[in-house]
Parts: sequence; C-alpha cells; structure tokens
Amino acid sequence: MVPCELLQTKEARGIEEKFSEKIKEIEAKGLEKHFRDDYIICLFDGGREMNSPEFARFLDHLSSSTSRGITFVVGGFLGLSERILKRANFLLSLSKMTFSHELSRIVLLEQIYRALTLAGGRHYAK
Amino acid sequence: MVPCELLQTKEARGIEEKFSEKIKEIEAKGLEKHFRDDYIICLFDGGREMNSPEFARFLDHLSSSTSRGITFVVGGFLGLSERILKRANFLLSLSKMTFSHELSRIVLLEQIYRALTLAGGRHYAK
Repeated sequence: MVPCELLQTKEARGIEEKFSEKIKEIEAKGLEKHFRDDYIICLFDGGREMNSPEFARFLDHLSSSTSRGITFVVGGFLGLSERILKRANFLLSLSKMTFSHELSRIVLLEQIYRALTLAGGRHYAK
Repeated sequence: MVPCELLQTKEARGIEEKFSEKIKEIEAKGLEKHFRDDYIICLFDGGREMNSPEFARFLDHLSSSTSRGITFVVGGFLGLSERILKRANFLLSLSKMTFSHELSRIVLLEQIYRALTLAGGRHYAK
C-alpha cells in the first residue's frame, strides 16, 4: 500500500483572465504553502511524455532511490506559474492534447494507480 | 449545435481473458450492428497522436468535406478486434499512456467538445 494524499489548493477566482500572471501568482502561493522537501513533478504541456510502462518504471525507480515524498502538481485553468515550473524536479505531459485541469487530475491518478499495479505485478485494465 | 449520440454496446463478460479473441469478436459484432455509412475513427494505442488544435482542424476539415456522420469507437478492456481496426477510416491515439476504456471515453468527449469550441471560436479552458 502506498499512502497518498490529495490536496486541493485555492483557485484564484473573480479576476479577469487578462491578469493571468496575477492569477498564476496567487495560485502559486497556495501551492507553495504545501511544498515540503518533496520531489516535485509538475504537469506541463511542454513536459516529457511517457507511455504507461515507462511511467511505472520512472515512479518505481524514483521511489526506490529517494526517501523524499513525491508530489504531483496540477495547475489551474491557466496552468502553473514560471516559479513553480522552475522549482519542479520533473515536468510531465500526459498527452499532446490539452486536457482540462479537472480531467488531468483524474487521468494522472489513474496513471499513478496503473503504475503501482504494474510495479506490483498486479493485474489491471489494458 | 452539433447533434451527438452516445451508444454503449455490450461488453463480453464472464469469459476468461485468455480467450481474448473471442471477447473482441463478440464486442465487434455489438459494434458492427450500429455502423452506418459513417466515417469511423477508432481509438487505438498505435494510432496517430494530435494536439488539441490539430484535432480541432482535423474534425473541422472532416465535417466540412463529408456529409457522412462521424463515429468514434472506443474498445473494451482488451481493445478492438482487428476487423474493426481495419474497417476504421482513421486510428487515433489520445496519449502515449494507456488509459482505461472508461476514462478514454471521457477524455475523448472532452476533446471533441474542445475541438468544437475551438472551431466555433468560443472560449474554453486551456
């Protein structure tokens, strides 16, 4: 069993989208409050794409080579601020396609679950 | 507005997974019952990946160049039979990663919605 915690930080609402930097800055602060010494993986369009077995090996290798926790970060509807992206240890892309951030979260959770079952040699849907 | 119909065909249940061809054959028959003269797009791991604007242009071009309907086909937990894949006019991959077929359906629906809003010049989440 792998302990897992899902944190939802505050979305900056009620600000016009043209102030996108301000929105991302507010949301960055909300994220940073929760950052510990974790290995941080941000979802990012320009990040690295992996297939599911590669992602499983990546997570498996990561968790066996570090005692740090692993934190995945999904941005808001405008994505993540530059500062958060720079702080990331790894930038991951789930697809060439752009998914809504709500859907990204579900897809990511399923990939993590899939990776853990692959690593554990358990059966899961193809 | 674009008319859209969601059809769920029968999954072959209660058959051991080692009889995968049999499962896919039963599911293929369930799908074929609904095939009209449509342009058929099957989701397939080995299919073509596109980013969201490419997918929007692809759908836009397709719907303006044909009067046929467009049918997207998502396989069951073992994927689609060879016969269905051969019948497809286009093979599409949503990601390098493998998604469950349930999740593929949601992701595909969101991409179609996103494509239609892009084509219509409307606003949608980034």
